[in-house]
Amino acid sequence: MDLLINAIKKKNNPTVAGLDPKLDFIPQYIVEGAFEKFGRNLKGAAEAIWEFNKGLIDELYDIVPAVKPQSAYYEMYGFEGVKVLEQTINYAKEKGLYVIADVKRNDIGTTAEAYAKAYIGETDLGGGITERAFNADSATVNGYLGTDGIKPFLIKDKSIFVLVKTSNPSSGELQDMAMEKGTVYEHMAELVKKWGSENMGTMGYSNVGAVVGATYPAQLEELRKIMPYTYFLVPGYGAQGGKAEDVAKAFGSDGLGAIINASRSVMCAYQKTDDAPQNYAKAARAEAIRMRDEIVGFIK
Amino acid sequence: MDLLINAIKKKNNPTVAGLDPKLDFIPQYIVEGAFEKFGRNLKGAAEAIWEFNKGLIDELYDIVPAVKPQSAYYEMYGFEGVKVLEQTINYAKEKGLYVIADVKRNDIGTTAEAYAKAYIGETDLGGGITERAFNADSATVNGYLGTDGIKPFLIKDKSIFVLVKTSNPSSGELQDMAMEKGTVYEHMAELVKKWGSENMGTMGYSNVGAVVGATYPAQLEELRKIMPYTYFLVPGYGAQGGKAEDVAKAFGSDGLGAIINASRSVMCAYQKTDDAPQNYAKAARAEAIRMRDEIVGFIK
Repeated sequence: MDLLINAIKKKNNPTVAGLDPKLDFIPQYIVEGAFEKFGRNLKGAAEAIWEFNKGLIDELYDIVPAVKPQSAYYEMYGFEGVKVLEQTINYAKEKGLYVIADVKRNDIGTTAEAYAKAYIGETDLGGGITERAFNADSATVNGYLGTDGIKPFLIKDKSIFVLVKTSNPSSGELQDMAMEKGTVYEHMAELVKKWGSENMGTMGYSNVGAVVGATYPAQLEELRKIMPYTYFLVPGYGAQGGKAEDVAKAFGSDGLGAIINASRSVMCAYQKTDDAPQNYAKAARAEAIRMRDEIVGFIK
Repeated sequence: MDLLINAIKKKNNPTVAGLDPKLDFIPQYIVEGAFEKFGRNLKGAAEAIWEFNKGLIDELYDIVPAVKPQSAYYEMYGFEGVKVLEQTINYAKEKGLYVIADVKRNDIGTTAEAYAKAYIGETDLGGGITERAFNADSATVNGYLGTDGIKPFLIKDKSIFVLVKTSNPSSGELQDMAMEKGTVYEHMAELVKKWGSENMGTMGYSNVGAVVGATYPAQLEELRKIMPYTYFLVPGYGAQGGKAEDVAKAFGSDGLGAIINASRSVMCAYQKTDDAPQNYAKAARAEAIRMRDEIVGFIK
């Protein structure tokens, strides 16, 4: 987590730009241009995403410390989309951004190992050759399978964020259920703490972070207290309804401890301006700055 | 689930061949041949997987009703690997196989929708055009996020399998924990039943199945009783240690209700024979037949 914390400090910005490029989010001139060139097919859609992402990264990389591509919106366009996920990660890394692959992967040990290698590790090709499939710094994971599904992701200089209390309306159906002691999400928080305690960084936080939604501020505040050494990835700010005063609860007294995600509100900022769609990336930049200033104002 | 049940009945075989093509599992002559042709890189590895899979499908398609590619082993080879996942699914479908995409996806509503479209639905490209990114019949999903993460996957003529009690050693760290009533996995079973009750097929089973590991036969037996209308996808037979008498507990009195997965024991059957590696697919066929007969023998 040290790399992420350093990036956050350097840019004085504890936010991450989600790259969830649904076609609906992309300016029509980009989508139609790509379809004209490549056909109205998955390849055309993927190329539209690539152009959109590149434009966003070019305008955001000096403002935000990190980007978080959501894998679903690439997989939806088949292997062509997944190729653009790979390109997007590489491009963001070239621009010095920390990349969180939002993949929420989970499986038994040997398979979790394959996922870990895919996103934050290296794939062995024999003969002493390895290659990075997707060159991210961090991945989101689901801890339902316990330690077996987590351990392979504990890789030097990389981090993970484990789902604890998610931002969606139905998250309580399992996560809020009472156990003999506490709730399911509190039990998951204890597991995350345990995994993290064996993987501490040098800046007071472990390499095993937690996903905690901004849409449940009371739980966010509670989890901050019971997980003092855990970095939080906080979705749900902006379009999902989480407010700056809510997400402020995710930070510790050191002003650190959390990174707030905004996807749609940044990507689609242009839809709320009178500007030409061609200025979509500039609108995203303005919104990213506004969000940064708002959240930083609430932390101290 | 009707399509799967019909395929199982037609072939009198309640097993599914897992396609988890780690390079270590693939005969050296295929791997080295692909590296020679495409280079020792992700593309070369992906081409080796493709040749391996095609050979397996050609020898298995008249024996087994279904195949289950494990996405991690494709993603590990980057977009080239994911392209081979797509090809593998299409090839298996051409051969009349039911395809379960073992992806264990999970996310909030809008993102779950993108995943559902990717694997068992259709991707909207505007202008009335849709395309299938990955053309599977079924997908595995993780229910930690509740209904929001499941609902988008409830698509006509498609099925899902939700993780309930997984086969790995640490699955109990969360799943076995006592709640006010029952355990976490029993609570998940209740959710699966609820989702399924609104999505019944015509053959006595819902379209929302459950993943229940063969390595925990007592829990398997218990879950069979409390989920009479839920189809089980049962991993853990063979290499992971689950035995035929264990997996027999997954079936109802109708002789239906479960499909047993074997991956490594079928794919790597050639490693246990004195045959040339060139006969790997024939060895897989022999093991698939042996497994079928053993399990059918226990069900009666």
